[in-house]
Amino acid sequence: MRVYDLIWKKREGGELTREELEFLISRFVNGEIPDYQMSAWCMAVFFKGMTFEECTALTLAMIDSGQKIDLSSIPGLKVDKHSTGGVGDKTSLVLLPLVAAAGGTVAKMSGRGLGHTGGTIDKLESIPGFRTDLSQNEFIKQVSQIGIAIMGQTKALVPADKKLYALRDLTATVESIPLIASSIVSKKLAAGTDAIVLDVKYGDGAFMHDFENALDLARTMVEIGNRAGRRFKAVLSDMNQPLGLAIGNSLEIAEAITTLKGEGPPDLTKLCLTLGGLMLFLAGLSDTPESGEEMLSEKLSSGAAFAKFKELIEAQGGNPKVGDDLNLLPKAPVIRKIMAPCDGWIERINCRTLGIIAMELGAGRNRLEDIIKPEVGLRLHAKVGDYLKKGALLAEVHALKDSDAEMASLQLVDCFHFTLEPVDRPALVKVII
Amino acid sequence: MRVYDLIWKKREGGELTREELEFLISRFVNGEIPDYQMSAWCMAVFFKGMTFEECTALTLAMIDSGQKIDLSSIPGLKVDKHSTGGVGDKTSLVLLPLVAAAGGTVAKMSGRGLGHTGGTIDKLESIPGFRTDLSQNEFIKQVSQIGIAIMGQTKALVPADKKLYALRDLTATVESIPLIASSIVSKKLAAGTDAIVLDVKYGDGAFMHDFENALDLARTMVEIGNRAGRRFKAVLSDMNQPLGLAIGNSLEIAEAITTLKGEGPPDLTKLCLTLGGLMLFLAGLSDTPESGEEMLSEKLSSGAAFAKFKELIEAQGGNPKVGDDLNLLPKAPVIRKIMAPCDGWIERINCRTLGIIAMELGAGRNRLEDIIKPEVGLRLHAKVGDYLKKGALLAEVHALKDSDAEMASLQLVDCFHFTLEPVDRPALVKVII
Repeated sequence: MRVYDLIWKKREGGELTREELEFLISRFVNGEIPDYQMSAWCMAVFFKGMTFEECTALTLAMIDSGQKIDLSSIPGLKVDKHSTGGVGDKTSLVLLPLVAAAGGTVAKMSGRGLGHTGGTIDKLESIPGFRTDLSQNEFIKQVSQIGIAIMGQTKALVPADKKLYALRDLTATVESIPLIASSIVSKKLAAGTDAIVLDVKYGDGAFMHDFENALDLARTMVEIGNRAGRRFKAVLSDMNQPLGLAIGNSLEIAEAITTLKGEGPPDLTKLCLTLGGLMLFLAGLSDTPESGEEMLSEKLSSGAAFAKFKELIEAQGGNPKVGDDLNLLPKAPVIRKIMAPCDGWIERINCRTLGIIAMELGAGRNRLEDIIKPEVGLRLHAKVGDYLKKGALLAEVHALKDSDAEMASLQLVDCFHFTLEPVDRPALVKVII
Repeated sequence: MRVYDLIWKKREGGELTREELEFLISRFVNGEIPDYQMSAWCMAVFFKGMTFEECTALTLAMIDSGQKIDLSSIPGLKVDKHSTGGVGDKTSLVLLPLVAAAGGTVAKMSGRGLGHTGGTIDKLESIPGFRTDLSQNEFIKQVSQIGIAIMGQTKALVPADKKLYALRDLTATVESIPLIASSIVSKKLAAGTDAIVLDVKYGDGAFMHDFENALDLARTMVEIGNRAGRRFKAVLSDMNQPLGLAIGNSLEIAEAITTLKGEGPPDLTKLCLTLGGLMLFLAGLSDTPESGEEMLSEKLSSGAAFAKFKELIEAQGGNPKVGDDLNLLPKAPVIRKIMAPCDGWIERINCRTLGIIAMELGAGRNRLEDIIKPEVGLRLHAKVGDYLKKGALLAEVHALKDSDAEMASLQLVDCFHFTLEPVDRPALVKVII
């Protein structure tokens, strides 16, 4: 087998076999295939795509490059959730304790934030004392004991993906749906859960701006997951405005707690119920996704979900009192209020720009080595479809110093577009696959 | 300027500016741009192409990477010819002395053969004593004195092309018309001649099998040449059967000599007159290509072309007596005759396979380091459109030993396809651009 022929075959639109993809990935990881051949192959994939069969074989070959987590010592079906990332996306913080409260077994490996989107691990670390660097043994033990654990992704999973992604990032071959799908699904499968619900976001604040592309990505990931013998479902959700009202780590923890108490923003609550219903259904704990949603609604109103979150915090070394006293969370020294500049309905919000403003305040990373400031961020007081009078409260900036707040305020006001015509509130969840 | 953005721009079908292409090539040659980015860019070019403007800028940037030959000390317009290569293509051996005999100033840098096609330099070296490793001073002096010199390509020309081609060869990005055109034209322009006639071959025995692709390549090269301020013309010629009758170095020298005496195969003679007429026209030595052809016909029949070839041989240290006594050329110890297996017209010849058989006998190189055997090869006695009786002479194999001849004979007979329906002789030259 020659790499040249595999590049040529893909360039001509051919379908690579499982053996060919295994050859490609294993030799690439051990350094026998040089980067310049792999990047040419990635560009050919960008243009010619891959069949579901190829995507599955690529995913399995990538998984084989590293460690696989074995969760078989934990009884029952283990469930996980993955989001493609968005602005203000604190879904996992609410959803996972909620599902665990309803009897789901949640073994979640999570990532850190980069660019205009945040990461669950960063958010959890704004809870004083919370540890995310669990060992595998601690992780498995905790899931067995309380039904939930959330840890940072171990580096030993799917080294092929790390190497391939670094190359794609330098060669303009990131934006290929088969490669994105294989990258995401390989990490989920290697993490060992039986059932996975994907939250694929589209719109200005998501990595996929275009709905059709997001749909294609979702379908591809579900196909790969199913072909690999796991239970997969995907939800397409709108990211043309932030999810909920808070953007920034400790602000989002506060919003998650409010939501777990049943008092959260309707869009965030609805998304958690939708995703959670699917998770319970896939785990065999409800007959339908809808009956799963009902179980979860009850766990929200009974306080069981909130109690499970406090149990999680305590199990991972955090201070569970933050649940009852949000003042124990890090607080920014400067809070500036932004008022509506005119009467009108909010027609559109520059979601991605809001993410970047929050990142620049210190809530996110521009580069991998940047240090997160948990206390900073933005809190919206209105979203698309809301009507405001001129001078009404529109948003708050939480900053470390006045000059930061000043800069962010100036940018923030331009992110809201008003109209005198009534605007409907957009639907958050568009499709379930 | 970032390489990433240039890859991205080409991937999205954008047009790179001259500055961007200069940046890309200069940084690639000095090692600042890694191979893995360049190969991804080449694959994007494969899919998205380049405009004539881009091709020209790329060609000029590649030329700037190395030495440029200055022929300005030689009076008048200097002319050159380039063939994209084919089986039995000894055109230069006839054409260049012919044009020089008619007053053209021919400064020719030529290459060696690789794969199923031969190279002019290898062929000339089968003349005892003939030197092709002229210094630049010797080269310029000889062109000034006798109007013609043929030397091997100096390595100092267009190092960017060498580096880029080596990378394309490993990454399945050779077959891109803009990249092929820029590669060929950059070397021709760097060699310093004012006017160039291209012989672009298509068909089974050529690098371009498809006529439309060859046409596209020809048009692209002529455009680049003209935009770079030189005089360019291109001829598209059929390579679905060998040119002339001989394949192999010393056999082709013999055929060239016969042709220079006015007794060569009609197709070879016609092609040399067509190309030569264009060369005289571009050099301003004839009013039209047709009147140039007439001048050349006269040089063939008068013996002037043949005399110029002997003058060339002598000037470059070869034995000019080979012109009068073909027995002075290297001769194979084993000659085997192949007879027609049936009555019929020859409908088709596997041209590429004939080139490979000749290469395997020792007439060409499979790898760069292989050593050429000048005396071996094939000589056809019939071509497409000829009628043969069963048992009539079809071809000869010239080999070093019996077992080679045996093997070649077995393969050879399968290369000729007979039919009982009359077949027309195909036209050799299809289009002039």
